[in-house]
Amino acid sequence: MENCKICEGSKNSNNLAFETKLWKATLADDQYYLGRCFIDLKRHASSLSELTKEEILDFLDVVKKIESALKKSFNAEMFNWTCLMNNAYKNTPSNPHVHWHFRPRYRDKFEFLDLIFEDKEFGHHYERKTDRILPEDIRTKIIERIRENL
Amino acid sequence: MENCKICEGSKNSNNLAFETKLWKATLADDQYYLGRCFIDLKRHASSLSELTKEEILDFLDVVKKIESALKKSFNAEMFNWTCLMNNAYKNTPSNPHVHWHFRPRYRDKFEFLDLIFEDKEFGHHYERKTDRILPEDIRTKIIERIRENL
Repeated sequence: MENCKICEGSKNSNNLAFETKLWKATLADDQYYLGRCFIDLKRHASSLSELTKEEILDFLDVVKKIESALKKSFNAEMFNWTCLMNNAYKNTPSNPHVHWHFRPRYRDKFEFLDLIFEDKEFGHHYERKTDRILPEDIRTKIIERIRENL
Repeated sequence: MENCKICEGSKNSNNLAFETKLWKATLADDQYYLGRCFIDLKRHASSLSELTKEEILDFLDVVKKIESALKKSFNAEMFNWTCLMNNAYKNTPSNPHVHWHFRPRYRDKFEFLDLIFEDKEFGHHYERKTDRILPEDIRTKIIERIRENL
């Protein structure tokens, strides 16, 4: 789809964590919630209502894979899943592309690569204004760890 | 499941909007986002990873039904879906029960029953601290309208 940042970005993301037949998981630059990812539908569709049975079943596979991998990789306790797409509606005409925000949540501090990750809001709604942008070499190591546990 | 507010609440909610074989949609008391609902899995399960194929397929049916009904009923433009379950982790041991928060979002003001509903954050993340608790007779009429359009 033209004029769709997700369709365009999907072709050259450096942050690809893993993909299934129909979905693609990329690591967010902001890793305040360690392992935070975006899960993009490979096909351009504008709402959850447009998903096919095959797509929602494949999404369930993504959920199982990534939740399990994040528990093993970083001792994540639970996970926040959101499908919002509000930004797409800032423009007219709007052109949303189905994607999920995946935020692992942590009861305890976790140390990885000499960095301390702390979920200060555990048990509460995620903080929206996080801004822990990690450099590419660190993100690559986070992705490697996730892949080892898929 | 004992000590699960959702399992207990599911037996006597006044706000039931509709149900499918495996999920139950109840209207939220807070109707700042007109048509806001909770979608509870009828079975006690603690994470999305535990859903069965049948449950996720039935969830897709819920999505299609409720998104369509809200467009027809109140001219909702798009929808925010979140599966969080953070509150359950305030307690130890935690006892989460899979449920979704469904917030219809509105580009334009909508009038219903002489009440004006306005989504002041349209195009942006939902506001968490909304507090438009409507009386039961109004909630009942909202539910009736939704049911007419299912």
